[in-house]
Amino acid sequence: MTSVTVPQSSQAVVDAAGHRDPDRLLPADPRTRSIARALYERVAGAPIISPHGHVPAEWIADDTPFEDATSLLVSHDHYVTRLLHASGADLGALGVGGAPTDPRAAWRTFADHWHLFAGTASGYWIAEELSGVLGIEVDLGPDSGDAVFDLIAEKLRRPEFRPRALFERFGIEVLATTDDPLDHLDTHRRIAESGFGGRVIPTFRPDRYLDPDAEGFTAGIDRLLGATGEAATFSGYLAALENRREHFIRAGAVSADHGIEDPETFDVDPDEADRLFHAVMSGAADAAQRRVFRGHMLLQMARMSVDDGLVMTVHAGVVRNHSSSTFRSFGPDSGHDIPRQTDFVRGLRPLLERFGLERDFHLVLFAVDETVYSRELAPLAGFYPSVYIGAPWWFLDAPDAMARFRSAVTETAGFSRGSGFIDDTRAFLSIPARHDTARRADAGFLARLVAEGRVTEGAAGNIIEDIVGPQPRRVFKL
Amino acid sequence: MTSVTVPQSSQAVVDAAGHRDPDRLLPADPRTRSIARALYERVAGAPIISPHGHVPAEWIADDTPFEDATSLLVSHDHYVTRLLHASGADLGALGVGGAPTDPRAAWRTFADHWHLFAGTASGYWIAEELSGVLGIEVDLGPDSGDAVFDLIAEKLRRPEFRPRALFERFGIEVLATTDDPLDHLDTHRRIAESGFGGRVIPTFRPDRYLDPDAEGFTAGIDRLLGATGEAATFSGYLAALENRREHFIRAGAVSADHGIEDPETFDVDPDEADRLFHAVMSGAADAAQRRVFRGHMLLQMARMSVDDGLVMTVHAGVVRNHSSSTFRSFGPDSGHDIPRQTDFVRGLRPLLERFGLERDFHLVLFAVDETVYSRELAPLAGFYPSVYIGAPWWFLDAPDAMARFRSAVTETAGFSRGSGFIDDTRAFLSIPARHDTARRADAGFLARLVAEGRVTEGAAGNIIEDIVGPQPRRVFKL
Amino acid sequence: MTSVTVPQSSQAVVDAAGHRDPDRLLPADPRTRSIARALYERVAGAPIISPHGHVPAEWIADDTPFEDATSLLVSHDHYVTRLLHASGADLGALGVGGAPTDPRAAWRTFADHWHLFAGTASGYWIAEELSGVLGIEVDLGPDSGDAVFDLIAEKLRRPEFRPRALFERFGIEVLATTDDPLDHLDTHRRIAESGFGGRVIPTFRPDRYLDPDAEGFTAGIDRLLGATGEAATFSGYLAALENRREHFIRAGAVSADHGIEDPETFDVDPDEADRLFHAVMSGAADAAQRRVFRGHMLLQMARMSVDDGLVMTVHAGVVRNHSSSTFRSFGPDSGHDIPRQTDFVRGLRPLLERFGLERDFHLVLFAVDETVYSRELAPLAGFYPSVYIGAPWWFLDAPDAMARFRSAVTETAGFSRGSGFIDDTRAFLSIPARHDTARRADAGFLARLVAEGRVTEGAAGNIIEDIVGPQPRRVFKL
Repeated sequence: MTSVTVPQSSQAVVDAAGHRDPDRLLPADPRTRSIARALYERVAGAPIISPHGHVPAEWIADDTPFEDATSLLVSHDHYVTRLLHASGADLGALGVGGAPTDPRAAWRTFADHWHLFAGTASGYWIAEELSGVLGIEVDLGPDSGDAVFDLIAEKLRRPEFRPRALFERFGIEVLATTDDPLDHLDTHRRIAESGFGGRVIPTFRPDRYLDPDAEGFTAGIDRLLGATGEAATFSGYLAALENRREHFIRAGAVSADHGIEDPETFDVDPDEADRLFHAVMSGAADAAQRRVFRGHMLLQMARMSVDDGLVMTVHAGVVRNHSSSTFRSFGPDSGHDIPRQTDFVRGLRPLLERFGLERDFHLVLFAVDETVYSRELAPLAGFYPSVYIGAPWWFLDAPDAMARFRSAVTETAGFSRGSGFIDDTRAFLSIPARHDTARRADAGFLARLVAEGRVTEGAAGNIIEDIVGPQPRRVFKL
Repeated sequence: MTSVTVPQSSQAVVDAAGHRDPDRLLPADPRTRSIARALYERVAGAPIISPHGHVPAEWIADDTPFEDATSLLVSHDHYVTRLLHASGADLGALGVGGAPTDPRAAWRTFADHWHLFAGTASGYWIAEELSGVLGIEVDLGPDSGDAVFDLIAEKLRRPEFRPRALFERFGIEVLATTDDPLDHLDTHRRIAESGFGGRVIPTFRPDRYLDPDAEGFTAGIDRLLGATGEAATFSGYLAALENRREHFIRAGAVSADHGIEDPETFDVDPDEADRLFHAVMSGAADAAQRRVFRGHMLLQMARMSVDDGLVMTVHAGVVRNHSSSTFRSFGPDSGHDIPRQTDFVRGLRPLLERFGLERDFHLVLFAVDETVYSRELAPLAGFYPSVYIGAPWWFLDAPDAMARFRSAVTETAGFSRGSGFIDDTRAFLSIPARHDTARRADAGFLARLVAEGRVTEGAAGNIIEDIVGPQPRRVFKL
Repeated sequence: MTSVTVPQSSQAVVDAAGHRDPDRLLPADPRTRSIARALYERVAGAPIISPHGHVPAEWIADDTPFEDATSLLVSHDHYVTRLLHASGADLGALGVGGAPTDPRAAWRTFADHWHLFAGTASGYWIAEELSGVLGIEVDLGPDSGDAVFDLIAEKLRRPEFRPRALFERFGIEVLATTDDPLDHLDTHRRIAESGFGGRVIPTFRPDRYLDPDAEGFTAGIDRLLGATGEAATFSGYLAALENRREHFIRAGAVSADHGIEDPETFDVDPDEADRLFHAVMSGAADAAQRRVFRGHMLLQMARMSVDDGLVMTVHAGVVRNHSSSTFRSFGPDSGHDIPRQTDFVRGLRPLLERFGLERDFHLVLFAVDETVYSRELAPLAGFYPSVYIGAPWWFLDAPDAMARFRSAVTETAGFSRGSGFIDDTRAFLSIPARHDTARRADAGFLARLVAEGRVTEGAAGNIIEDIVGPQPRRVFKL
């Protein structure tokens, strides 16, 4: 470990009595803050709508207790492990990628470095989870790491901290998972038939079946065709994908999600598409052909969304697995996906030329290159009825970034063209903190508009209520 | 129409007595606000200088009353129609592109969706126009749409709401229109000779005669050569353009405006230019040649500006007519021009190598990719005596975007290297609201610098007075 | 000179009694300001660590008095001369590039245009220098220019304004210079052996020996090989560079600095590298080969840093010498280097694939394209233990830009992954003002997080103390 000599001190934001500041994240100016507080209170207790995320359906289906503080809050949270890694920690010792680990030792490493998270989104969420969800008011740090680990363990053994109880306590109205197209979705069926009141729906995520450069692409297509009984032709391949989308829709899915580096689309004729299909399947396709195929499949996904009604969400602009050696050791999602410049305007034009004006087509665009907010996404969503501006995502899912986002898009597109908040998380305990952060950030932004005489308090109240509930229900057809 | 379930409520920002907040747009912090108010008051009543815009000269020449609320505030305002379109409205029904429409029905659609404009620049301007210009204090909404339509109609019949009366009431010192190089400019001459005190000047806008990819390019060149009697050679073509610029200068023009997607320039020798000219005229030029020709003509325009003194304004970075089917139905300027990444630094280098240091050459650069403000425009304008930073334009012509703009450029280039505000609008009634917005935004920005001890109140007062009057007069040679 | 008609008025921010606002640069909101003041006071008097800059070592070695106001504050400060040039001044008359000049006349030009610097970083620094360092409370302007020139001359004659006295008064703990690889470093040795307590260390800056497009590249390599006795092969060339780095390390260097336009790296095998070396030395290499060579040498520099421990700093994204005619007249660093779009994520990937996870490798990335902060640098530094986010540099070394920087990086990477402040300056008198500005800006940013309930005051105090001292010592291995 690099020796970092910052004096240790409280970073969890609790007062002497161990309580979080009730006005946290609200603007400092007293008048603006009082407006913001009133706006926030209108939505603080509203149900949580989570139309995109990565919580495993098994957790809800099986309702098994969470194991320990490390597996719950560290190992699977790449926001946390990446910053620990940057500070010298070994990813394997933290349990990344399923590496066997000593949970208590990993937790100690986290506790020792807790002060590094001051000012980060992760640090804020975890402080919220410890205090708000787990009711632990002890200050995390090198001296308290073991005690907090034990306190968490004690909580996790209680029935009220099992997944279903928390689901209800969090007020989750709907929770979407993210699933492989060949998933049988039995787990979702099991939840639905279990009598559990919570709505847990799958999301169709076909990336690996669309990108010839994805690992195991051709084997995946073979499995897909095998599972659906379709022929090894481009039209068979499309039919197989349509078949699986239908399967997802029957299981309650409302959206198909696409994670891509470059939001580039190509409109090619069926013969050319068929030639490309055979080229990518035989391995004969060169880089240019693979690129066109990939971009054409994104356009085909839009076509299928127009046909079957699944909302199309696109998460674009991330170079995945930037460090090959880390990828080899720990697999994907191990903390080294890095954003890059993104061009939605020219890249999506072929798709929008075909489907941008289609009734009931919903295309939600999520970006990690925040320069696109004012330049591309607000202008696109402010014209195309199909386009919605995705909430600030991943590295941008944080209070300051949210304020920049609202400032960047609102003057062009208002509030109605947004997606509503998505938490996009596997960190189940962080779900209420994430949604609460967005509500506070939006209350703060709207309060400034009110204080500056740009929006009335009445209109601001209507807007924040719309953002939190009706908007995501509308956009995600819930 | 998509059903949007936001509860309707006041969005026009008026108090119980129906008045706009006098401190609107000023910063919320009380001390900063009081400094901002004092700065704003120094320029609130200053004359309006509008060196770039799209008001038809006929309106002033003929002084005919405006028709109705829809044609005045909706049909021709692509800021308004685009957001209505995104929300499900039909562009044709709104009268876009001259489509025949039922004005009252179109206005109802607008009134029904008025709440969607909360927080947008358009919403702010229209609230200002209704209250400040038209004196209508009724809250717009589904219930009041018809009444407001009738109230506006009643106003528009009065002499004090005819164009010339408003021109004078708005305190417009000079208003520039935007005109085709082959325009005879009789309308401008008619205004000048009419005894009307207001100064209305033309602007030379030659895009369609410079870009081989523009619709009707070769036919346009033929007309240009025919009108000027020049030969169909590159030098004849240049002479024809020079001839028309001279015509504009005689009619009072002070600037030539260039709307381009890519601010790219090429310096080629005369023989090569002549070869390119013949290639683009014969249709033999490939994409690369057309690109070089276009980029060379931008450089030639700079050369002509050096020679004849017309200020050169460049509006760059917009993909025009992103939706081909909308373009086919409703023509250009129908709301689907979308910004893209822009590179002024490398693109304009050939032009600046040739003319960047020329005395009395003025090159004003307008951007819709706001990343260029701190990275490119402030550094360029902070070195080249010819380069001025264009005011935030189009999607960026809004209070928050203006604050980001000032923050991005001032620390490098101060206040003296800006263009002064331009309204760039055809929405005649919005002109005072737009200029007032810029004055308030600048007062707010300067007030923060004063409150933070970075500029004295005296200096800030001098600066805001300079920005509003002397600066645009200097930059646009008025 | 262009005639600028702004009324002249005080721009130096002094009160009636001639004192600077003690709360300058701190946020206006009273509660936030009081938190910020307390944080600032913890570090206001901390020693200055300056691990990267351009002060000539001779100034400290010889301790000769500064000449006059113009050579001290104008001629060599391209921030100042560039804005004067944009406003119509002649660079030669200002003494740029060593042009013979009349210092008093040049100073008058500066004084006449002093109001143009309101709101700029340079204006702020110079106001600080006049008031804080030189104790001159006279308001600069056309009427006082001569008097201030004389006052400064009078000060500069005093022993307490000679370089070493100022070095001590400024509280400089360590000052790094920037040096040519073939520099014998005798000046640094002379300082070290002189009994002067201050630590002045060299920095290895090899750009001109790595870039085949640099002026005099092959002659430089010949000199390098001659000086080290190495063979004219790629491995001889590498050995020569390693030899000179070792020489620098023995003289106290802790870092090697790389100024490049494009942060692009290539990993090629030794045979290919040798072929490229011979091609660039013979002049046979085409643009593509020169690019690969340059990008490979950046990767080799990382390899050497891994081997010898020198911190690798990269200053990327600047188009140098944008105006060729200015370059021909006044040489490099004459004010027309302009930032451009930068891509660290894909460009540095080959380098990071090889060395990004190496223990004790420190790679500090400085940017002038601020879009990379949230998109690229925070995500990279938040994963790779080797990567540190360089402080806002050059055009971004200013209060608002610093606030944007902290906002952009902190939510992803916290505070620990930054480089600490660097002043990067030759303007010796501005060093305390620059460091003080960063301390005030960080205090303001942290105070906002405290006021918004995101970080405790205790943690904020620890963080600001770490940023100012331990962090740069850690990152630069001091």
